[in-house]
Amino acid sequence: MHFPGLKNDTFMRALMRLPTDYTPSWLMRQAGRYLPEYNATRARAGNFLNLCKTPELACEVTLQPLDRFPLDAAILFSDILTVPDAMGLGLYFAEGEGPKFERPVRDEAAVAKLAAPDPEVETRYVMDAVRTIRGALGGRVPLIGFSGSPWTLACYMVEGGGSDDFRRVKTMLYQRPDLLHSILEVNATAVASYLNAQIDAGAQAVMIFDSWGGALADGAFQRFSLRYTQKVLKKLKLDREEPDGQGGTVRVRVPSIVFTKGGGLWLEQIAASGCDAVGVDWTMNLGTARALVGDRVAVQGNMDPMALFATPGQVQGEALKVLESWGIPSPGVGHIFNLGHGINQFTPPDNVLALLEAVHTYSKQQRQSSV
Amino acid sequence: MHFPGLKNDTFMRALMRLPTDYTPSWLMRQAGRYLPEYNATRARAGNFLNLCKTPELACEVTLQPLDRFPLDAAILFSDILTVPDAMGLGLYFAEGEGPKFERPVRDEAAVAKLAAPDPEVETRYVMDAVRTIRGALGGRVPLIGFSGSPWTLACYMVEGGGSDDFRRVKTMLYQRPDLLHSILEVNATAVASYLNAQIDAGAQAVMIFDSWGGALADGAFQRFSLRYTQKVLKKLKLDREEPDGQGGTVRVRVPSIVFTKGGGLWLEQIAASGCDAVGVDWTMNLGTARALVGDRVAVQGNMDPMALFATPGQVQGEALKVLESWGIPSPGVGHIFNLGHGINQFTPPDNVLALLEAVHTYSKQQRQSSV
Repeated sequence: MHFPGLKNDTFMRALMRLPTDYTPSWLMRQAGRYLPEYNATRARAGNFLNLCKTPELACEVTLQPLDRFPLDAAILFSDILTVPDAMGLGLYFAEGEGPKFERPVRDEAAVAKLAAPDPEVETRYVMDAVRTIRGALGGRVPLIGFSGSPWTLACYMVEGGGSDDFRRVKTMLYQRPDLLHSILEVNATAVASYLNAQIDAGAQAVMIFDSWGGALADGAFQRFSLRYTQKVLKKLKLDREEPDGQGGTVRVRVPSIVFTKGGGLWLEQIAASGCDAVGVDWTMNLGTARALVGDRVAVQGNMDPMALFATPGQVQGEALKVLESWGIPSPGVGHIFNLGHGINQFTPPDNVLALLEAVHTYSKQQRQSSV
Repeated sequence: MHFPGLKNDTFMRALMRLPTDYTPSWLMRQAGRYLPEYNATRARAGNFLNLCKTPELACEVTLQPLDRFPLDAAILFSDILTVPDAMGLGLYFAEGEGPKFERPVRDEAAVAKLAAPDPEVETRYVMDAVRTIRGALGGRVPLIGFSGSPWTLACYMVEGGGSDDFRRVKTMLYQRPDLLHSILEVNATAVASYLNAQIDAGAQAVMIFDSWGGALADGAFQRFSLRYTQKVLKKLKLDREEPDGQGGTVRVRVPSIVFTKGGGLWLEQIAASGCDAVGVDWTMNLGTARALVGDRVAVQGNMDPMALFATPGQVQGEALKVLESWGIPSPGVGHIFNLGHGINQFTPPDNVLALLEAVHTYSKQQRQSSV
């Protein structure tokens, strides 16, 4: 399998469980508030939503961490709530309170009005950002597109914002499962179109963030989250035309990653959903994950983001632990180094550099020692 | 094995994996704000801390749910932060913000000052509450004593209150593990004395709440949480003298339960810690839990507390699902029905009644159908 036009295809190869010279890495929320240059761009944008909605600025912040750190992938800078916003729910950010919706979806009338947006119309700014970033990257590393999962989007849509007990959406789940299934059906269609539009615009891999899957009970997770993630995966364009570098075109694979925070107990079921890779958080032992699913999907993760608050030397020690818990690379398995969740806004950038350098160095050594 | 003086020993028998006529049940936080009579007593006490610190009132609220519902155990009404409060950290409750400490433990000097309190002196009000409740129960159902785990207490002690990212305590963990180990060592000693004093005062079973164990990375959980829970378990008085009902005394077993929220991936390790039962949250499949550890420890759990927001009939359907996921009772295994976390303050009390009646009815039917 080849990934033409990419100067660094390590991430793509690992996703497809092909041999790599070292363990590729990127970090969830790598473009973010811990970087002073990000804060400067955000200040120019005026606010977070303007930043997401201005493709040139979204491109600028997407590329910032690549200029500082030896990262093997870029990820579209955007918000997971662009899709429900495009459905007309009225996304806004209350200062210090996180995202909110002006018109949450809580009754039959609101559910009946929901429809999947046309991604190139109502979220055109996202597709423009993908096109701009892809052009600006010039093949340096691959670009990851992403979306929230149908269930995770439904949490925000019903709760009207963040929640720590998910009382409203779970009341709907237990009392009116029919209503929730209707929302999830629309969301699955919307997420699939949204990701396919990102693929058309140039995204080289896509990731589905099921950030709140782990809030569900066993049984409910399968019926209300995984089932709809699977529906999305089934509708994805698995490959697309790319220039072959000799004036022609070639079909290349667009791999998918599913990340369910707190979903370690369901890892085998998630791995069987049709994705190419699963993201795992820091509660999962990587060796166990590899033993359970490593011959079927690649695994992405899973350092505790808080380990980045130690000294640079200690951070490197933690990176080594993560690589050792995965073990010696072997044919047919793939590991992508990442955190188990988004990087914290107070993280010292120098520690990120120490981390990524250690991942490169140690993972090369692992491969040499295994020869 | 006998539990003399108990009119209802179903809970004790299930903890020891002995046959029972039905599945015993109690609910975490069963005495609490969802009950109007609790709110009335709390109003009389003036505030939550006064309620905890007045044994007669703590007894009153402990017994309230037993008068409404067919519960098989009472649990001491108290707070998990009584121990660090007794260490001199200055517990207070900021309105609408949860518990806080005036003097959090964040540096060497603060750690050096920590010492395990004498439970009969500095938390005498807790032991008085246990004695009062035990007397008032008169053998109706057994009384469960409890404590936070050493790690969970350390989270509050270092953070100075609740946290959603545990940045302070995890920074200590990764940067100054020596300091955190010192805190945990003191906490393990303090928790063991505290639980032993509750056992001396009359607690018939004890539960360790590792509410924040699931926030730790694999590896860190074993070193910073489970290891210290094990130290506590090793120091517990496993049995104690009880009147035998014929004028003499008999030694009875005091079983222990360990509940790690979000700890499903570590279930086998927790079950091997020396406890008699493990609590599991709703993300764990009960049939899987039974297969993994059911021949060694009893299992307690695990309905999603939010399922109590459905209609009474739907709540009963969810109860049936939980019992069916555990499966047909058989010799040598034990299941205690509970929620997977504390009951929510907005729960309709009538649904709790519907739930507990369903657990009794269905679990009796399960036993009859298996004969």
